[in-house]
Amino acid sequence: MNTLFKGITAILPDEESGFSAKVCDIAVSDSVISYIGDDAVKNGFVPDRTIDGRDKLITAGLVNSHTHSYMSLFRNSADDLMFHTWLFDRIMPMEDKLTAEDMYYGTQLACLEMIKTGTTAFLDMNIARDCITRAISESGLKATISRGLVGNGRDDEGGKTRIEDTLYDMRTYGDNKRLKFMMGPHAIYTTDRGYLELVMEKAAEYGLGINIHLSESVKEIEDSIAQNGCSPVKYLDDMGMFKFHTVAAHCVQLSDEDIDILAERGVYAATNPISNAKLGNGFARIPDMLDKGVKLCIGTDSAGSNNTLNMFSDMNFICLAHKGNCRSATAVSARQALKMATETGAKALGFDNTGILKEGYAADLTVMDMKYPSLQPVNDPVAAMCYSASGYEVESVMVDGEFLMENREIKGMDEERIYFECNKAMKRIDG
Amino acid sequence: MNTLFKGITAILPDEESGFSAKVCDIAVSDSVISYIGDDAVKNGFVPDRTIDGRDKLITAGLVNSHTHSYMSLFRNSADDLMFHTWLFDRIMPMEDKLTAEDMYYGTQLACLEMIKTGTTAFLDMNIARDCITRAISESGLKATISRGLVGNGRDDEGGKTRIEDTLYDMRTYGDNKRLKFMMGPHAIYTTDRGYLELVMEKAAEYGLGINIHLSESVKEIEDSIAQNGCSPVKYLDDMGMFKFHTVAAHCVQLSDEDIDILAERGVYAATNPISNAKLGNGFARIPDMLDKGVKLCIGTDSAGSNNTLNMFSDMNFICLAHKGNCRSATAVSARQALKMATETGAKALGFDNTGILKEGYAADLTVMDMKYPSLQPVNDPVAAMCYSASGYEVESVMVDGEFLMENREIKGMDEERIYFECNKAMKRIDG
Repeated sequence: MNTLFKGITAILPDEESGFSAKVCDIAVSDSVISYIGDDAVKNGFVPDRTIDGRDKLITAGLVNSHTHSYMSLFRNSADDLMFHTWLFDRIMPMEDKLTAEDMYYGTQLACLEMIKTGTTAFLDMNIARDCITRAISESGLKATISRGLVGNGRDDEGGKTRIEDTLYDMRTYGDNKRLKFMMGPHAIYTTDRGYLELVMEKAAEYGLGINIHLSESVKEIEDSIAQNGCSPVKYLDDMGMFKFHTVAAHCVQLSDEDIDILAERGVYAATNPISNAKLGNGFARIPDMLDKGVKLCIGTDSAGSNNTLNMFSDMNFICLAHKGNCRSATAVSARQALKMATETGAKALGFDNTGILKEGYAADLTVMDMKYPSLQPVNDPVAAMCYSASGYEVESVMVDGEFLMENREIKGMDEERIYFECNKAMKRIDG
Repeated sequence: MNTLFKGITAILPDEESGFSAKVCDIAVSDSVISYIGDDAVKNGFVPDRTIDGRDKLITAGLVNSHTHSYMSLFRNSADDLMFHTWLFDRIMPMEDKLTAEDMYYGTQLACLEMIKTGTTAFLDMNIARDCITRAISESGLKATISRGLVGNGRDDEGGKTRIEDTLYDMRTYGDNKRLKFMMGPHAIYTTDRGYLELVMEKAAEYGLGINIHLSESVKEIEDSIAQNGCSPVKYLDDMGMFKFHTVAAHCVQLSDEDIDILAERGVYAATNPISNAKLGNGFARIPDMLDKGVKLCIGTDSAGSNNTLNMFSDMNFICLAHKGNCRSATAVSARQALKMATETGAKALGFDNTGILKEGYAADLTVMDMKYPSLQPVNDPVAAMCYSASGYEVESVMVDGEFLMENREIKGMDEERIYFECNKAMKRIDG
């Protein structure tokens, strides 16, 4: 199938500024971007289908580098609460009541929201075998999936079962080429050294990367210094974890030495700016990490602490919050945020040929309708992505050349059913 | 005309928590909310028209307490720049090229965006006679309009002309009962004491309130202390300005004494959280002002420094940024933000009987489609307003019982023409 986006405004990589917008033709052959330039047809492209690009903006699909998809059920159910009240009095009692079906529909809701707001790939950490991966697999999105691993010691039966959940989902859904898997040790405060060593052995055995929560709260730092005599980053580095491809979510509370370690080891730091602010954990040291060359990507975290999986919101917030926090209008730019939310995110997830609009790369694309006041007049579309777009200007989303949403029609999921089932679940859980 | 919203989820004022959501009937008789309760028809209401409220959320229309509507032309044209570069190298050269027609269409674009994102009233500070007020008048929105007043001394001809612009627009558009006017002295750094005294005399003569920029940047504070021996707040208070109904935009850099003065004098502080962060001015002391009982309302500022006039974005940002800044998940709650963005904003603008859903109040209403992933499942709609809604869930907006937008159809403006003219203007100005 040959699809041509004709005369569309495209956000293209640009060596000088990072990104710039240009009106061009973009041709898709099967799953791949086969041409970007002034005239695809003159250059030999024979479209089966031509889409008029007037008043449309096309970008690489956004990449959400940290979320817990099933928790979309809990959106707007635990707000304006201090962290411990939030976690122990609200979230955990609700989690205890979740069935596999609840998690399946919660995950479908997450996928629906991500597609509707232009995300084409995400990194998930979850709590169950099968139901969540099944929902993700059916959505058509690209995803790197990690079963959250909690355990004490190498012989912890629960801990071993959770590792086996990962392997089960790899066996069961491994044929879906849009899915990848990582080992997902939850955090240093929910695992011990013995268990982490077991997890690393399994990661080595199966050739998997590692996805972990790291340095989120001040308490985590204080406890680590008390128990391990060093910061969480140093603790994991000494253990050898960063020899693996590692995505570390949060990275809010970092020392200078921590930042150096993350930069030197090539750890992907998945910042969650909205969630970190909302739970009172503060602002990560994003400008310092940018200066030191840490590989930064952006996650929404779950709808339990965001309350949306709309990456436009986090791109917006990371620019604005750090300008405010540093009292500098140049602290984090739109172009830096967009790179985190696309190119670097894709690499963090382990998808190499996606995340930018480039010939030969996967056709993972987001098309926006510019006939919205938020995108008018059409001055700088890159700035628009971070400062004025809401995310609901997105009208079509393509993954590997397949439309998951086209002109706002969702292809592979039953939207009404998802809403019905999620509301039904929440009435039972928290009614 | 009797309109009934039947069985709609409504965000109602609630003495205990501030707001709560309830499924009810809301009846509108001509321009007024005539009934809120379980069953309007059983209580004698005879609807000419019944709107099915299933899956709809209704709130009081949002109130944008500080913007410069004509600057919507400049959206996404001056980003990631330090304040002085932004103002002197980008914004002011573009402003110099504006025609009356440009400002008319820029203002229409602002009104269009506000209607599409659920705002029913706003406070404008602008730079021209007639064209801007005409655009606002035609939009159907409620607005309090202030011509920005810059001047040196009582006899400054330019300063006197700008005051006359205000009076001209009052005479010309005064029949529109949705419009109010204020005197708009720009700031203490663009006026001197003699001119401010003249402005206050005119405000007294015409019974007008005052709209002024106040304590936005550190430089403004430092200069005031050097020139006046006190803070900008103290300087204006000593001059007697706060005897007038005053809306002070920004109020970022405040001392404890400043906060006490604003609270004691009943000054409305219109915080602009996104603009203040984006230009590197930092975060206002919102939690302290809330503690002291300052009347807080929220403005978007212009699209030149936000880059949207979508109040949902500022409600979201004020909650998140202050939680992050104070490292406290309870710093500013959704319910506090919603009150600033509705009830207090309406009072700041001088509109007494609007800003909450209440019998006898004006039917200034925003209706949202809850069949969006951002609003599902329907857990706490008040939290949804601040934490998950994008603003584009809004499908209908009513002012004084008249639909300005109904099921996404804009009634009184030509959307295509606005986009065309705004792009044409920006090509000429900055092409």
